[in-house]
Amino acid sequence: MRLCTLRWFLAASHIFFIIALALSSSQALGARVKRTPHPNEPLTYIWPLPAQFSFGDGTLSVDPGLSLTIDGNGSGSDIVKAAFDRYRGIIFKRIDRFSFLRKLRERITVYDVSTLRITVHSASEQLQLGVDESYTLLVPKSNGQSVAGEVKIEANTVYGALRGLETFSQLCSFDYSTKAIQIYKAPWSIQDKPRFAYRGLMIDTSRHYLPIEVIKQIIESMSYAKLNVLHWHIIDEQSFPLETPSYPKLWKGSYTKWERYTVEDAYEIVNFAKMRGINVMAEVDVPGHAESWGVGYPELWPAPSCREPLDVSKKFTFDLFSGILTDMRKIFPFELFHLGGDEVNTDCWSNTTHVKEWLQNHNMTAKDAYEYFVIKAQNIALSKNWTPVNWEETFNTFPSKLHPQTVVHNWLGPGVCPKAVAKGFRCIFSNQGVWYLDHLDVPWESVYTAEPLEGIRDQSQQNLVIGGEVCMWAETADASDVQQTIWPRAAAAAERLWSQKDSGHTGNITLTALPRLQHFRCLLNRRGVPAAPVTNLYARTAPVGPGSCYAQ
Amino acid sequence: MRLCTLRWFLAASHIFFIIALALSSSQALGARVKRTPHPNEPLTYIWPLPAQFSFGDGTLSVDPGLSLTIDGNGSGSDIVKAAFDRYRGIIFKRIDRFSFLRKLRERITVYDVSTLRITVHSASEQLQLGVDESYTLLVPKSNGQSVAGEVKIEANTVYGALRGLETFSQLCSFDYSTKAIQIYKAPWSIQDKPRFAYRGLMIDTSRHYLPIEVIKQIIESMSYAKLNVLHWHIIDEQSFPLETPSYPKLWKGSYTKWERYTVEDAYEIVNFAKMRGINVMAEVDVPGHAESWGVGYPELWPAPSCREPLDVSKKFTFDLFSGILTDMRKIFPFELFHLGGDEVNTDCWSNTTHVKEWLQNHNMTAKDAYEYFVIKAQNIALSKNWTPVNWEETFNTFPSKLHPQTVVHNWLGPGVCPKAVAKGFRCIFSNQGVWYLDHLDVPWESVYTAEPLEGIRDQSQQNLVIGGEVCMWAETADASDVQQTIWPRAAAAAERLWSQKDSGHTGNITLTALPRLQHFRCLLNRRGVPAAPVTNLYARTAPVGPGSCYAQ
Repeated sequence: MRLCTLRWFLAASHIFFIIALALSSSQALGARVKRTPHPNEPLTYIWPLPAQFSFGDGTLSVDPGLSLTIDGNGSGSDIVKAAFDRYRGIIFKRIDRFSFLRKLRERITVYDVSTLRITVHSASEQLQLGVDESYTLLVPKSNGQSVAGEVKIEANTVYGALRGLETFSQLCSFDYSTKAIQIYKAPWSIQDKPRFAYRGLMIDTSRHYLPIEVIKQIIESMSYAKLNVLHWHIIDEQSFPLETPSYPKLWKGSYTKWERYTVEDAYEIVNFAKMRGINVMAEVDVPGHAESWGVGYPELWPAPSCREPLDVSKKFTFDLFSGILTDMRKIFPFELFHLGGDEVNTDCWSNTTHVKEWLQNHNMTAKDAYEYFVIKAQNIALSKNWTPVNWEETFNTFPSKLHPQTVVHNWLGPGVCPKAVAKGFRCIFSNQGVWYLDHLDVPWESVYTAEPLEGIRDQSQQNLVIGGEVCMWAETADASDVQQTIWPRAAAAAERLWSQKDSGHTGNITLTALPRLQHFRCLLNRRGVPAAPVTNLYARTAPVGPGSCYAQ
Repeated sequence: MRLCTLRWFLAASHIFFIIALALSSSQALGARVKRTPHPNEPLTYIWPLPAQFSFGDGTLSVDPGLSLTIDGNGSGSDIVKAAFDRYRGIIFKRIDRFSFLRKLRERITVYDVSTLRITVHSASEQLQLGVDESYTLLVPKSNGQSVAGEVKIEANTVYGALRGLETFSQLCSFDYSTKAIQIYKAPWSIQDKPRFAYRGLMIDTSRHYLPIEVIKQIIESMSYAKLNVLHWHIIDEQSFPLETPSYPKLWKGSYTKWERYTVEDAYEIVNFAKMRGINVMAEVDVPGHAESWGVGYPELWPAPSCREPLDVSKKFTFDLFSGILTDMRKIFPFELFHLGGDEVNTDCWSNTTHVKEWLQNHNMTAKDAYEYFVIKAQNIALSKNWTPVNWEETFNTFPSKLHPQTVVHNWLGPGVCPKAVAKGFRCIFSNQGVWYLDHLDVPWESVYTAEPLEGIRDQSQQNLVIGGEVCMWAETADASDVQQTIWPRAAAAAERLWSQKDSGHTGNITLTALPRLQHFRCLLNRRGVPAAPVTNLYARTAPVGPGSCYAQ
């Protein structure tokens, strides 16, 4: 095939490489100030940066009637077809599909690209940790003839194809002279795959309820940055919004009747995410952070006046916990399940008579009981074929007792993943100093330069770091401000997690990354996502004054 | 027809009136604090409050397969059909239309309401100032039989039908017990019409470019509050984003090539707004606020070092202005066109040799030239069959020279509309102390209690106040924060402009309006609009801590 001749390693004279792109483009952007002449050089940025890519200096026009051809064992997949429709909407948003003039123009125009051919080798739509997300994207060079060409995406799985579609959409620009969609710097040859299997964003629907529509908006925007795990911290001490059929009084702990998720809502979120190649990891945080459970079942509180942690002394506590997990297992197919285990203050156990007696009878300290609870919860999760994830306090406190399959979720600070992987555990990096999005004073540079493998030299130990996650704790984030608190900083982490080490931040990141991140933020805005200015001192604050999106 | 027996004036024993609703409902809400038992009383709020309405105490279920029947001369209207599809999406968002269980349930369920009958008397889809937006909405009482009932909307125009559809959508609630859509407090009889013909929101796309997608989101959310004019302040001194075919270099004054509106974009916005019963009033602000024009045509500047106001001495200035208006007349069918005229500092005229000479030759002071420019601009607009709107400085400075058709747009402070209408001009109320949304320190109460007719006693003079407008100046508002700066305060103004005087704020507005406004804010959130908490000290700030949307 003609397209196969464009492989990146064929260093034709017009082919430049990544550093050249980053530098030349950032110089162009750096020079762009208010009302200076626009650079003639068209800018094409891809965020996050692909593993390997090359490009030329041609320009191709794309047919607004772009057609899709799917090959391979995965050609029957609705996931790819639905994604193509979504991306066609995004790419051709500004092309008036019904205008007389456009139709006329179309009849006399031969576009350089009229077909997108997607080859998906596997028929499996299974979405699990480590699913193959690699893809190859080939954009032909202009053949100078009136024969329409083909852009080709090849992937092992439908999810790789989705990632390729996102990249393709970022190559397509609306051209203000021709009023057509063009691909600059053709031909392109991109061979891409993620650096980490787990690229997460946590949302917290207990401190503030997020409507379904808003959760969908978040998931949709995650797919633009190639994030692939929505960690859903559903429940916490403030509210219990989820329906649990086995224990139907639990969602009495919601703020109001109107701030709840039905089982059907949860199914819909999981399906919506899957259609975008995103797993949903649910969390039920025990034994702390569970006060709201007792609104429906007060017997879960050690005492009405002392409500957390969950009463460790009662069989009912674990029966109910097991019931919740049985209900949730039907909804959440992802192999990882988050059991929390953080910030457990055991005072209510030590200070409540019947729990204190139970501790004495079982010859346990409160700390022992914390371990007992966490391990028991792990076993319940494991019995339901779930791999347990726990916040790092469990590892910090009783590392040798955790199930060997446990994924340790770092948050308190640096240095935890190195210890966890040294003991053979897998680890997720979420150091709060850099990747807690509710820390509004963390600038994009700190988010961007954080390194999940820091302090880990051994390759086999590095392999145990499955990835990282930015956490959007919601004490002050609700439907009105959650997206601009997430973006653009989550995108900085997304490139760290997707792109190969050092590919994105060679040299001075103010030159190599900032202009591209600003560009990606404006892309989010164009797609209707209210991503905040990149360089503001505090996250989610307003722009300081009038100006271009690309410079704020 | 059965429905016709439910008219509001039939005071059946179970029918209560507006004050009772407002008080009882707000008491219910006032009592709702974190995790207190949910009130059993279902809450139904309508924002803005209809002119007249009554309700009962029944509950009706609504068929997820709700069908539409359109009667009357307007029955062929695509506008109504498209709106029905939009509202069906909103109302049944949480009903899984494809679930096996739901389909099963549906086969054995007879819903109380299965048809929405809309009668539109006029076939005209013309949308102009004063278009009839009245409607009647009748929801039957439960007939207790297995015969499905009909909800009826009757309106003179398609735009009245749209307002009725919005109200209908606010009557429909997702019920968490039955997992079906229900209408509480049936039967309903609503007879509604707006208090003012002009209910505007201004956006400013010069200080920050707003992507098309974001403008559409704003328009869509305006329709939820029954606002009906988008005042588009397209151009200002910072940037000129609009394509003007007659003078194609003008949009060189855009921030970047990617922050522009094509003619097709503008058409699309006008059409998108019309489908929602919203007029777009364009503004070209002259002679001040026009520095960006000179990027493409530097001869418009008095001097390269002194760039505003537009050069009054050159014929080219007015030829170009006329060309812009000719281009725009094809796009914007609304009869009102805003010519700006505010904040004109004439120093550049007095200090630039050739302009100074021109003033002397024409025996004009700089102030005379300001008047000369504004009147000339008015005549150009009038010659293109537009009614001129001007900011109040023009009226404050040379009231007797303005064309009698001029609409005076108040902004500097109170007391201007009384003076303008006393001289026979029409007036739009936008007192910056209460209705400038960029004033972040104005609380919802001040927005809500502002009165466009304040100081005007004479009925014929009152009739000259066509309405009011909240203004979203964009120095610090871009795609990331514009919606949460607009909402919820724009909704407070929307009720002032739609609802009859004193209907909404009888008594203590903390009881009669606040709970309903909080409810409407949560409705916006549910529909994906990031409306900010109502009671925060400053607009668009984050919630102060965890809590329910309904209490923040």
